[in-house]
Amino acid sequence: MASPEIDALTQALSRLPGLGPRSARRAVLHLIKRRETALAPLLRALAAVEERLATCGICGNVDTTDPCAICTDPRRDARSLCVVEEVADLWALDRARLFPGRFHVLGGRLSALEGVRPEDLAIDALLRRIEAGGVDEVVLAMNATLEGQTTAHYLAERIERFPVRVTQLAHGLPVGGELDYLDEGTLAQALRARRPVA
Amino acid sequence: MASPEIDALTQALSRLPGLGPRSARRAVLHLIKRRETALAPLLRALAAVEERLATCGICGNVDTTDPCAICTDPRRDARSLCVVEEVADLWALDRARLFPGRFHVLGGRLSALEGVRPEDLAIDALLRRIEAGGVDEVVLAMNATLEGQTTAHYLAERIERFPVRVTQLAHGLPVGGELDYLDEGTLAQALRARRPVA
Ligand SMILES: [Zn+2]
Ligand SMILES: [Zn+2]
Repeated sequence: MASPEIDALTQALSRLPGLGPRSARRAVLHLIKRRETALAPLLRALAAVEERLATCGICGNVDTTDPCAICTDPRRDARSLCVVEEVADLWALDRARLFPGRFHVLGGRLSALEGVRPEDLAIDALLRRIEAGGVDEVVLAMNATLEGQTTAHYLAERIERFPVRVTQLAHGLPVGGELDYLDEGTLAQALRARRPVA
Repeated sequence: MASPEIDALTQALSRLPGLGPRSARRAVLHLIKRRETALAPLLRALAAVEERLATCGICGNVDTTDPCAICTDPRRDARSLCVVEEVADLWALDRARLFPGRFHVLGGRLSALEGVRPEDLAIDALLRRIEAGGVDEVVLAMNATLEGQTTAHYLAERIERFPVRVTQLAHGLPVGGELDYLDEGTLAQALRARRPVA
């Protein structure tokens, strides 16, 4: 396109997951044909998020407040702590209101291949939360991948010394499946059938 | 999600063509994990477009200047005028630099079903451009749909009284095909083989 501004917008949109160059162009056309009903609301929403974006100092969730809305929600059961690899996994579990407790985001999974070691993840912060007390159960909700399960076993060993029940998602998860891609029914079943780590 | 700002952004994105609720959530996560490299650039690009968006008073293109960059480009052949239904079609033809002339956007196509009459489209403006002189050829680049072809025939009759050559895209276009969805090869061939309206 001729206009550098429209070009820049098309390029910025085409870098979003799920939008290639073609669909980005269609999205731009959609936006500029609907300046008041589509472009302006999207701009306002983006600006509001950009202005207030924060990583929760307690759980690692990304939200517009710190602590995040989950950590400050009094209706949630603080005695139950669900540990996930990524913020996307927290959102996947929270989306369907599947888990009534709180969360802890590791920020990844142990990986010899990628050189990710325990100190690269928010594991010490997790142990401090458990040590501070008030937690009865830690649910390890790692992906059903080799690295996810390695991470879960490592965490189970580290948590062993605390008087908490450690469970993990039931292995109804498809092998190699990643939480964020699963439908809510599968997630719900895996959560219901969660069992103590052997 | 808990945060109303993040919710609003997810909803605004999910209304874009090609992005459902699920991919909108992934796009939001992508953006908030990359505040500096993805969120901020998208915000800047959107703001720049929103601030400067304009419909070209000459051809009906949407751009960040009025007249648009195409109408003011001295390298384009003003004697050749390509008439399209929608801005998306103009972009499709301009994208691959297929047409070296200028454009005219009708803003739709005649439709008995939808009650779109000649006076609802930018047809008078087109006739005024032709009447003003300097145009040798008018290329009717309507969609290969029943309504598109009805519109082309109607336009050909209206333009008949002017001393210009009226052509239309060759019917290499697949039946029912819409310009904006075709690959550039098909578009290029149809344009090369354009022929006088019978
Ligand atoms: Zn939190
Ligand atoms: Zn123009």
